Amino acid sequence: MKYTIGIDLGGTNIAAGLVDENYRIVTVKSVKTRHERGYEAVCRDMAQLCADIAAEADGEIASVGVGAPGTINSGEGIIIYANNLQFRGVNIRQEINKVFERPVFVENDADCAALGESAAGASKGLDNSVMITLGTGIGSGFILNGAIYKGSFAGTGEFGHTVIHTGGEQCTCGRRGCLEAYASATALIRDTKRAANEHPNSLIWELAGGNIENIEAKTAFDAADAGDYAGKLVTERYVSYLAEGLANLVNIFQPAAIVIGGGIGGRGESLLAPLRERTEPLCYGGVLRSEIVAARLGNNAGIIGAAALSNDYKIV
Amino acid sequence: MKYTIGIDLGGTNIAAGLVDENYRIVTVKSVKTRHERGYEAVCRDMAQLCADIAAEADGEIASVGVGAPGTINSGEGIIIYANNLQFRGVNIRQEINKVFERPVFVENDADCAALGESAAGASKGLDNSVMITLGTGIGSGFILNGAIYKGSFAGTGEFGHTVIHTGGEQCTCGRRGCLEAYASATALIRDTKRAANEHPNSLIWELAGGNIENIEAKTAFDAADAGDYAGKLVTERYVSYLAEGLANLVNIFQPAAIVIGGGIGGRGESLLAPLRERTEPLCYGGVLRSEIVAARLGNNAGIIGAAALSNDYKIV
Repeated sequence: MKYTIGIDLGGTNIAAGLVDENYRIVTVKSVKTRHERGYEAVCRDMAQLCADIAAEADGEIASVGVGAPGTINSGEGIIIYANNLQFRGVNIRQEINKVFERPVFVENDADCAALGESAAGASKGLDNSVMITLGTGIGSGFILNGAIYKGSFAGTGEFGHTVIHTGGEQCTCGRRGCLEAYASATALIRDTKRAANEHPNSLIWELAGGNIENIEAKTAFDAADAGDYAGKLVTERYVSYLAEGLANLVNIFQPAAIVIGGGIGGRGESLLAPLRERTEPLCYGGVLRSEIVAARLGNNAGIIGAAALSNDYKIV
Repeated sequence: MKYTIGIDLGGTNIAAGLVDENYRIVTVKSVKTRHERGYEAVCRDMAQLCADIAAEADGEIASVGVGAPGTINSGEGIIIYANNLQFRGVNIRQEINKVFERPVFVENDADCAALGESAAGASKGLDNSVMITLGTGIGSGFILNGAIYKGSFAGTGEFGHTVIHTGGEQCTCGRRGCLEAYASATALIRDTKRAANEHPNSLIWELAGGNIENIEAKTAFDAADAGDYAGKLVTERYVSYLAEGLANLVNIFQPAAIVIGGGIGGRGESLLAPLRERTEPLCYGGVLRSEIVAARLGNNAGIIGAAALSNDYKIV
């Protein structure tokens, strides 16, 4: 059997998986990232995980892929800048090769997650798909013509930072009206707090134990599911803004699928059904052909996608 | 010498060009479209133009490309629907092959124009570029990884119909707040008329000969260039909305270049310089790396791009 290793380099954990040719994870080993030790120690740990996995594998390891946060120079295998690791200009390829000598590929973690879902998950085998991760921010990865779309410069695929409401809500990026300022978990929590303050009798207060700081991304959805008026206002507004973003995606890309990941995406059909309904009339021609589906692989998407990175890799 | 023929099938004219391997137009022949005669007559004319050109050429014709308005099934060479030709389900490949037997490729005209600029114009040799045509509507064509991006379904690349202001100006597509409703020539004329009504002493009135119906896309720009206050209000607003759209493009694609075509694009640096200035701070990270340039080939872009269509065609 021929394998590749996929590494998900996160702010908290480094998870390395042995992945077979059918994009199945055989084993995973992980250690704490502890980036405060500096990049050399972190890279040594990644290489050691690879060596440990290789020692136990019943076949050849063809290559290593790393999904990393921040902006990446994938041609040279360098993390240009990753804020939450405090890495700047770190040559991951070189560092890993000091200990473990295999071809090393490095890509942005959102791109790896999208590739993982295309290799083995919700968008398996589809040539064009977009993965949108609804978390603290909004991550996005574009699989176009069977491969990660990388653009001509670092910073490609920041779909969360496209404006859907010029001059609207303040975004963390400095611009006003970005999709992220309306459809991230952070935005949802902000809007739920506002609604709670406007509706003192809302179930939101009960779900938050009377303390507004306990409001989470799911609070408004839970309240709406229980029939709460304020909860419904918040979730309907949330879905309608997210639908504007997805219709923009459809009108630009006509992807075979849009894969929704992140905590909010995990609500499944109770989110996806109204989302499709709201998105369709906004699509050019009034028809939504792209599937809108939930991500399937969770945290494994990053490992599988990283393992799928290689010079000649192409879905389908 | 080996040639291809590129045909620009428009609502008024059919223009067919003999194009050499360096994407230079050698000759052009054209006839009126007169689509009211029906698709068979129009296709027969296209085939006859090909035959006439081939008879005069000093070399082999490898293939024929057709750039057509509307939605296209490029795999089968069919115009699915073209409103301004009243064509529905017309198999262009089959019809041309009845008279002129060569491989026939059909693509959307906006895509052909983008490909033409990539082959021989403003984005020559660049692997990733987007062409935006500012006319009655907003056309767009995406060259990604050296080839036209086609998506998984017809209707890809409708960047004019992405929302930049949810709930804003009514768009012809039925949605509110599309880029086209702010940055097309039609939108610019609407806004110039509004400004004229609000500013009875504006130079706009003089440029329009006292009749509001004489206002054109260039009127506000001409007034602004002459120092008119109302003209400046209109053009600054226009540029700022267009900048929101271009920054969205940059944040998604990080293309090497954005090519601006259409009548308004023809204003050159007096439009492009303030446009770059407005776009840069809206880009993620505050840096605009993509070039923003004017289209170079005018109507020839469609002929050259159509000629460049073929199974194995790739820029760079």
